[in-house]
Amino acid sequence: MATKPEPAVIVIFGASGDLARRKLGPALHSLTCAGLLPAQTQIVGVARSSLSDAMFHEQIYAGVQTYSCYDEGECSMWENSKQHYTYLSGDYDDPETYYRLVQHLTQLEERSGAPGNHLFYLSTPPFLYPVIVEQLHRAGLNRQERGWTRIIIEKPFGHDLASAQELNAQIHAAFDEPQIYRIDHYLGKETVQNILTFRFANAIFEPLWNRNYVAHVQITVAEPDLVGQRVGYYDRAGVLRDMFQNHLMQLLTLVAMEPPFAFDARALRDEKVKVLHAVRALHPDDLVLGQYDGYQNEDGVAQASQTPTFAALRLFIDNWRWQGVPFYLRSGKGLPHKLTEITIEFKRVPHLLFPENVDLTPNHLSLCIQPDEAIHLNFATKMPGAGMRVEPVDMKFLYGKHFGKTALLEAYERLLLDALQGDASLFIRADEIELAWGLIDPLTEARQPALYPVGSWGPPDAAALIAPEQSVWHIGCVASNE
Amino acid sequence: MATKPEPAVIVIFGASGDLARRKLGPALHSLTCAGLLPAQTQIVGVARSSLSDAMFHEQIYAGVQTYSCYDEGECSMWENSKQHYTYLSGDYDDPETYYRLVQHLTQLEERSGAPGNHLFYLSTPPFLYPVIVEQLHRAGLNRQERGWTRIIIEKPFGHDLASAQELNAQIHAAFDEPQIYRIDHYLGKETVQNILTFRFANAIFEPLWNRNYVAHVQITVAEPDLVGQRVGYYDRAGVLRDMFQNHLMQLLTLVAMEPPFAFDARALRDEKVKVLHAVRALHPDDLVLGQYDGYQNEDGVAQASQTPTFAALRLFIDNWRWQGVPFYLRSGKGLPHKLTEITIEFKRVPHLLFPENVDLTPNHLSLCIQPDEAIHLNFATKMPGAGMRVEPVDMKFLYGKHFGKTALLEAYERLLLDALQGDASLFIRADEIELAWGLIDPLTEARQPALYPVGSWGPPDAAALIAPEQSVWHIGCVASNE
Repeated sequence: MATKPEPAVIVIFGASGDLARRKLGPALHSLTCAGLLPAQTQIVGVARSSLSDAMFHEQIYAGVQTYSCYDEGECSMWENSKQHYTYLSGDYDDPETYYRLVQHLTQLEERSGAPGNHLFYLSTPPFLYPVIVEQLHRAGLNRQERGWTRIIIEKPFGHDLASAQELNAQIHAAFDEPQIYRIDHYLGKETVQNILTFRFANAIFEPLWNRNYVAHVQITVAEPDLVGQRVGYYDRAGVLRDMFQNHLMQLLTLVAMEPPFAFDARALRDEKVKVLHAVRALHPDDLVLGQYDGYQNEDGVAQASQTPTFAALRLFIDNWRWQGVPFYLRSGKGLPHKLTEITIEFKRVPHLLFPENVDLTPNHLSLCIQPDEAIHLNFATKMPGAGMRVEPVDMKFLYGKHFGKTALLEAYERLLLDALQGDASLFIRADEIELAWGLIDPLTEARQPALYPVGSWGPPDAAALIAPEQSVWHIGCVASNE
Repeated sequence: MATKPEPAVIVIFGASGDLARRKLGPALHSLTCAGLLPAQTQIVGVARSSLSDAMFHEQIYAGVQTYSCYDEGECSMWENSKQHYTYLSGDYDDPETYYRLVQHLTQLEERSGAPGNHLFYLSTPPFLYPVIVEQLHRAGLNRQERGWTRIIIEKPFGHDLASAQELNAQIHAAFDEPQIYRIDHYLGKETVQNILTFRFANAIFEPLWNRNYVAHVQITVAEPDLVGQRVGYYDRAGVLRDMFQNHLMQLLTLVAMEPPFAFDARALRDEKVKVLHAVRALHPDDLVLGQYDGYQNEDGVAQASQTPTFAALRLFIDNWRWQGVPFYLRSGKGLPHKLTEITIEFKRVPHLLFPENVDLTPNHLSLCIQPDEAIHLNFATKMPGAGMRVEPVDMKFLYGKHFGKTALLEAYERLLLDALQGDASLFIRADEIELAWGLIDPLTEARQPALYPVGSWGPPDAAALIAPEQSVWHIGCVASNE
């Protein structure tokens, strides 16, 4: 197991918000219970709401109970650990807030003897990121004097290339790139990290992982939910900014990258960036946009909004490994299943040996990211009985069944732990985020999305997009847990 | 599904024996119940015992009840089908027996209007094979006048190269090679046939199936049973003749062969024969022999018998695909499990990317032949939790779970059906059987087998044989049914 990080103070901006309650509090508490954080770890919540420490504890504990603790014993540990949670209220743009924060940090560190390590977590609305960064800078909190200083930035990071570049410049004015941890929580998922172990800790998949054997690749991130609470943000963003620029591009880089020479932040992200550089400029003919029927009537959606809630995209990676292999990406809301999967469809057998079979289904491998955490290998086997009739069947590995559901580290637990340990491998580098925006930007110009019924797989053009492959969109991971 | 064969008369020599009761009767009955045999099919039992038709029916039905019928409904069909079973007693070397057989066949065919197709099944002790073949010849029963004539020869087919050549010559004096169906019941097993569909109905395994990716191959046929009833035969034969010359060599050819251009008897067996031709002359240093402790005290074993009940063998196939890849074969009695499996161990990853792992277990693929009917792919996956620790896990496919146990066609059902249909793909050709004997013969010269305790995996030298691979004998298929 990885060594424990050094003690640090974690300062959460936006501490009274949704993410802190649902994800960060429960993650920090689980890490404490699992013994993965040193005892001197301190958590400081910062927000505008005027809360006492006790009220802050109540908020965090409510989140812990709902989203984290899976047994009474773990929840009872809260009584012991809540003393490490303190709260500081103030306006984000008021230097006074940061002056008090400096004092508070000094006190905490004097009391605990902690070595002056600071992890700032920005979980506020994005327009506050530059404000907070600037104030941290002015208060000298960007400096690394007695310990290290790091900053985690939540997504969305910009809403296009220009805004991402501007935000990068603002942050770089105060922090060096190695101090900056841009979150895509998909990278915190065990199953996403396992794409790398699957590919590079096994000798038998990599020889097949190229244009000689792969027919095409599919990446699906499907949600049955409709737009829900985030309507204001979503109606401005749409599915391309909300899902493609980050999650789908991240999955793409992990599945397509060359083997890095080492598993560290630099080597890994260099290889991911190479993939993004090699993506051929996206063509509007390779894009299908949809909007679920009823979206325009949702509260908070702009009149006659043309925001896409579904997109399907074909892209090519112009390098030695992937030349000519199409990658199909799709994501949307109001779809039939919650489902994130990557499916590699391999080429057909070169020679049909068993004449009783008119055709053989090509092999495909599905990496199931969520909610099913699994790997499926679909291959042909002999059907029992006379003759040599062949049928496709699934060979599978189910994480939950093998390791137990609770053994899986939740995404925010993993990412917080990595940031505390100074491992930025699973965070997005400046060049990476800008490249991803550069690819998506040309697609976000206004186009008429086609309506699709809620509960369908998007407009018919999405199926038409993949039809030239003599294939269909796979949903190989649905109901894989038996 | 394959078409039904033409109606035929099946003549079983040795009809009062063990194989007829345990295997042939139940197999024929199951095929009838499954609707795979035409209604006019007739079964004639021939043996020395003086039995009435009714007594013969009783014997066959006892076998059906014990070994075949899995529900009352099926067993109740016996009342209807037993009328097709008739019995004829006589000495195997008496021309009179065959004269009466000719008359009996004529009567049956006149009564049923069947087209004169004859399948002779020799399930007598092997010394009778040439006797029966010669008498069939003299009675003209080898001829194909109004229909086809085929002959099935049970194993063992000879006890060395010279005797196999002599037996082939004796049979060829009466029958043409395409009429001759030499049985190795292993080839009737669904899981053995599936070696071919696994390899050649999928595009993703064949690219890995060679010296570039395979480190070595293991074939294990293990029995917990001791010598038991067949002691007289076994003490003369030993494990090399009893298991290696046939079952292990068959599994070897199927796993190592090139893709045939068609799935027919000629193309398939041509490729199998090529493998046997390419096996490098076996070297005594590559052989470990064992005898289980207590064998010499078994009733019927010769005094101070040096018969091996265990052997482990390393061999090489000198061709383009397999140059330098060792094949390890082992088989024995008194071992810990009943287990037949083929395991392909792949080479290690070329570069160790995850520094928390000192070493990574090489991938291996296990084709589980019996009693578990399964495929296991052992690969590395990320262990849940912090860091990138990797653990080997199994991805699996279980035939019984997928298809249901009863859907699997029993070996003798398949082989009888194929012989009735004139498909010799799963039977051993003359050149094939002689080549296999030619390989085994030099190993059967007297050597001192090392004692091993019953319930162990043979003498320690068996483990030492495989040690240079930095590996061990796999038992990847044990307890795979969950």
